[in-house]
Amino acid sequence: MSKKNPQDKLLVFALGGVGEIGKNMYVIQHGNDIVVVDSGLKFPEEDMLGIDIVIPDITYLTDNRDKVRGIIITHGHEDHIGGLPYVLRHLNVPVYATRLTLGLIEGKLKEAGLLGETKRILINADSVLELGSITASFFKTNHSIPDSVGVCLDTPEGTIVHTGDFKFDFTPVNDQYADLQRIAEIGKRGVLALLSDSTNAERPGMTPSESNVGVELTEIFRKSQQRVVVATFASNVHRIQQVFNAAMATKRKVAIVGRSMVNVVTIAGELGYLNIPEGMIIEPEEVNKMAADRVVVLCTGSQGEPMSALTRMARSTHRKIDILPGDTVIIAATPIPGNERDVGRTVDELFRLGANVIYGPGSVSGVHVSGHGSQEELKLMLNLIKPEYFMPIHGEYRMLRQHAKLGEAVGVDPDKIFICDIGDTVEFQGGVGRKGSKVPSGNVLIDGLGVGDVGNIVLRDRKLLSQDGILVVVVTLSKQDGTIKSGPDIISRGFVYVRESEGLLDEANRIVTTTLHKLMNDKVNEWASLKTNVKDALGRFLYEQTRRRPMILPIIMEV
Amino acid sequence: MSKKNPQDKLLVFALGGVGEIGKNMYVIQHGNDIVVVDSGLKFPEEDMLGIDIVIPDITYLTDNRDKVRGIIITHGHEDHIGGLPYVLRHLNVPVYATRLTLGLIEGKLKEAGLLGETKRILINADSVLELGSITASFFKTNHSIPDSVGVCLDTPEGTIVHTGDFKFDFTPVNDQYADLQRIAEIGKRGVLALLSDSTNAERPGMTPSESNVGVELTEIFRKSQQRVVVATFASNVHRIQQVFNAAMATKRKVAIVGRSMVNVVTIAGELGYLNIPEGMIIEPEEVNKMAADRVVVLCTGSQGEPMSALTRMARSTHRKIDILPGDTVIIAATPIPGNERDVGRTVDELFRLGANVIYGPGSVSGVHVSGHGSQEELKLMLNLIKPEYFMPIHGEYRMLRQHAKLGEAVGVDPDKIFICDIGDTVEFQGGVGRKGSKVPSGNVLIDGLGVGDVGNIVLRDRKLLSQDGILVVVVTLSKQDGTIKSGPDIISRGFVYVRESEGLLDEANRIVTTTLHKLMNDKVNEWASLKTNVKDALGRFLYEQTRRRPMILPIIMEV
Repeated sequence: MSKKNPQDKLLVFALGGVGEIGKNMYVIQHGNDIVVVDSGLKFPEEDMLGIDIVIPDITYLTDNRDKVRGIIITHGHEDHIGGLPYVLRHLNVPVYATRLTLGLIEGKLKEAGLLGETKRILINADSVLELGSITASFFKTNHSIPDSVGVCLDTPEGTIVHTGDFKFDFTPVNDQYADLQRIAEIGKRGVLALLSDSTNAERPGMTPSESNVGVELTEIFRKSQQRVVVATFASNVHRIQQVFNAAMATKRKVAIVGRSMVNVVTIAGELGYLNIPEGMIIEPEEVNKMAADRVVVLCTGSQGEPMSALTRMARSTHRKIDILPGDTVIIAATPIPGNERDVGRTVDELFRLGANVIYGPGSVSGVHVSGHGSQEELKLMLNLIKPEYFMPIHGEYRMLRQHAKLGEAVGVDPDKIFICDIGDTVEFQGGVGRKGSKVPSGNVLIDGLGVGDVGNIVLRDRKLLSQDGILVVVVTLSKQDGTIKSGPDIISRGFVYVRESEGLLDEANRIVTTTLHKLMNDKVNEWASLKTNVKDALGRFLYEQTRRRPMILPIIMEV
Repeated sequence: MSKKNPQDKLLVFALGGVGEIGKNMYVIQHGNDIVVVDSGLKFPEEDMLGIDIVIPDITYLTDNRDKVRGIIITHGHEDHIGGLPYVLRHLNVPVYATRLTLGLIEGKLKEAGLLGETKRILINADSVLELGSITASFFKTNHSIPDSVGVCLDTPEGTIVHTGDFKFDFTPVNDQYADLQRIAEIGKRGVLALLSDSTNAERPGMTPSESNVGVELTEIFRKSQQRVVVATFASNVHRIQQVFNAAMATKRKVAIVGRSMVNVVTIAGELGYLNIPEGMIIEPEEVNKMAADRVVVLCTGSQGEPMSALTRMARSTHRKIDILPGDTVIIAATPIPGNERDVGRTVDELFRLGANVIYGPGSVSGVHVSGHGSQEELKLMLNLIKPEYFMPIHGEYRMLRQHAKLGEAVGVDPDKIFICDIGDTVEFQGGVGRKGSKVPSGNVLIDGLGVGDVGNIVLRDRKLLSQDGILVVVVTLSKQDGTIKSGPDIISRGFVYVRESEGLLDEANRIVTTTLHKLMNDKVNEWASLKTNVKDALGRFLYEQTRRRPMILPIIMEV
């Protein structure tokens, strides 16, 4: 573990977060020392039926568990901390995080019953960590949650900088300034490789300041004669602060609705990241008792999530809050790709209730800005750091590609830009970087309590079942003479509505009977043959009749 | 059927197209005369698992079949013509359409084997139809397909104007100008009610001219040193024309790839709606033989549809066309809400192949504009027509609401604006309009060959099956002594991967056995009780162990 062993290579790779949005997990290894940056989760793609969340495959880390010095977390969002309860169960190493981030992590670990057995270490932007041959230091960044940091990892092979998620907000909320000077200083010292956030690499220009949203919110609150409901990401603590600021400016009280919103306001409030005067928060039960123009409801549901507070209000199924005609509802978020229809449906329902709804892309609504930097900010980071090598991270492939083009534009040698998939390694030795061999990587699917017990076969079955349902065919054959003793009975689920399709199912029955008789006349009596033949004959018949391919499950018993 | 019966009411309603995008079908009835405008389909919502397409419930029309004088089609897009093959089977009435529209309809009816038995009547913008007491005339509009018209329906109660889909394009492709003068003239004569397209009612300003796209395409074709692939909607004939224009200007030949693209180019070309010089079109097989900078591939797949031409090319599974590094791929379309992820995945794959991909919202890419008018154009239509009553149509509820606000803004009396759901009628008598009673309406789901045989129960089952799969439990009991003769056997599909979960399934087996023994000791032997108890006990156990709720199907046989 000497700092000077010239044989030691420096390895840099992602186990999650490249070629995808979510489950961020980056690994920096020098010799026998591994430092992990972030440990996030991803929400399932639409073809991952029934899956709750997805985390990275950490086989490489568990295979090298003695080398892992710790996990550094850049900020408290789910795609950076959400995997920890699963990862720490298999790899109990110290977790390093700033105060708010640690507060949110501890909330999670408590729920998972892991608070006692895990080691969590508080850092701040001035901390310096000796992690074997790797020295970690930090710099403050702007993002949609306070206490976000970038990470500077000094190794004997050179310095690696990981930006975390960032934008450059020159007028940040609650004085959460980025430390431009320190970033410049790191760049000046010389950086071997930069790993930088690509989320908005497709967007020209600068992302507007979060403060702009505050101005707009105050204006809307002021104009509204009735209640104002604001839905936003619970994780956007700056946005939450601005809702309180606007409420104060317009003499309204704030009710917090939705589990994750209550959770974040509680933790961020207790740790001093929200500046909320005594008495500003009211209980949801009090909303109906107060004058309508004195109330703000701050809630979850900005993505149209089916069980969220705003969705329930929109459907008039919320137990405590009704939307009344004339109320103003602000959706202070842009739909994440895939959620557009759900958000649209919520807006429709709110309009039907007579609400005045403010929604749509931030550029139109004025009540949302991104937490990620656009092209000019990404170029600013590249200019400050002036890395020799560049790895765009945190984005779908097309975003990484666009970010790579920005890197070229600011003068990084195209041969020194690496666009990686998860598991692709970049190795540095003697100042030279090249693509190395692959390490194990992939998606671990979590369904209920099951971690990794749902694989491709199960997903394929769910897909099939979801399209055309299933038919179970039950027949009892006689052992003696091979005649049909009972059945065939056909049970249909998700295929056709039985009452409407008696003729079809009767005919299906006849097909099964005929097929079995024919097989038995031909003395075919191996189990597998009988089943395959029934399946094929029935499948063919049903496809001809309906152009559908239900799953067919023949159950043939012998008595 | 007299034109002068003062008892006759005028009824206006939608069977599809309001509160939704798709399956447009509007009904105008005066006394015993019914005129239908459009007969479209809708693509299924994401919770309609396994459904192929959705059409309106036409019970009202079949119940009143003797009164239906015909179906007028405004233009040849699927959401206006796609329902015809299903509707005409149950309601064989004349279909009126302009030349290109009729060409596209006849293609559909031919495929459905309905060409012989249906009656189709060619109209043009100057046609006047006497449909009982209703007189129909037409006006040319701008839309993303030529030959689009709006409909003017003169009834004894007053004039109803239906815009069809429209924008105002002052520099249209192929001289397809809207007939502003005629629209103005109709307005001058006095219009009782306007039904107008709300698709872009949320968008401020004017939709840019389709011609802008042509300029951009030519520029990109010119800059590209290699092949250019353009994916766009097959139904956008103007866009297709401009691809040919840009190809001519840059001395490239065009290969047409994708079934619906070939279909539209053939029909529109034969009918003279595409201006394509001899020899411009090459076969897909010739692409590889030609100099790369002399070729354009025009294809389907702009929405990332899994089986489309562009998706296959992106995945390197297209039989004839490979994407080579340095090729330019233009996605000349904006993703329809819900398709963003599929399009994103296609762009990623294309980038991975080394293509230069031009994509994103039209305002960024420059290669797409909408075919629907934005707020200023909607106000222009309202100003030209100056209707007494106004019904926003063709849009989700929020779009109808925004359109209603535009109506108010230009001076329509708010009490004379009706936002309707499907089946809501507006009745006019003596110059006064009011909401009338409801008529039957709804979604008819088409799955394969089945029309309407998949209902809520089947969809609920598919949803359940898609989330956690199914367990089939097979047990044989003895008739004599009620002991278990064979089983329980548990078959799992889409629940857990069996090899990984033997312990769980063994335990599940024991639970079933114990439950049955207990019931039999208690002399419970009704079929239904046995099944319910097995289902409950097993469901409880599995939920505790896995937090999943698979469908459980107990099959208990007696021998």
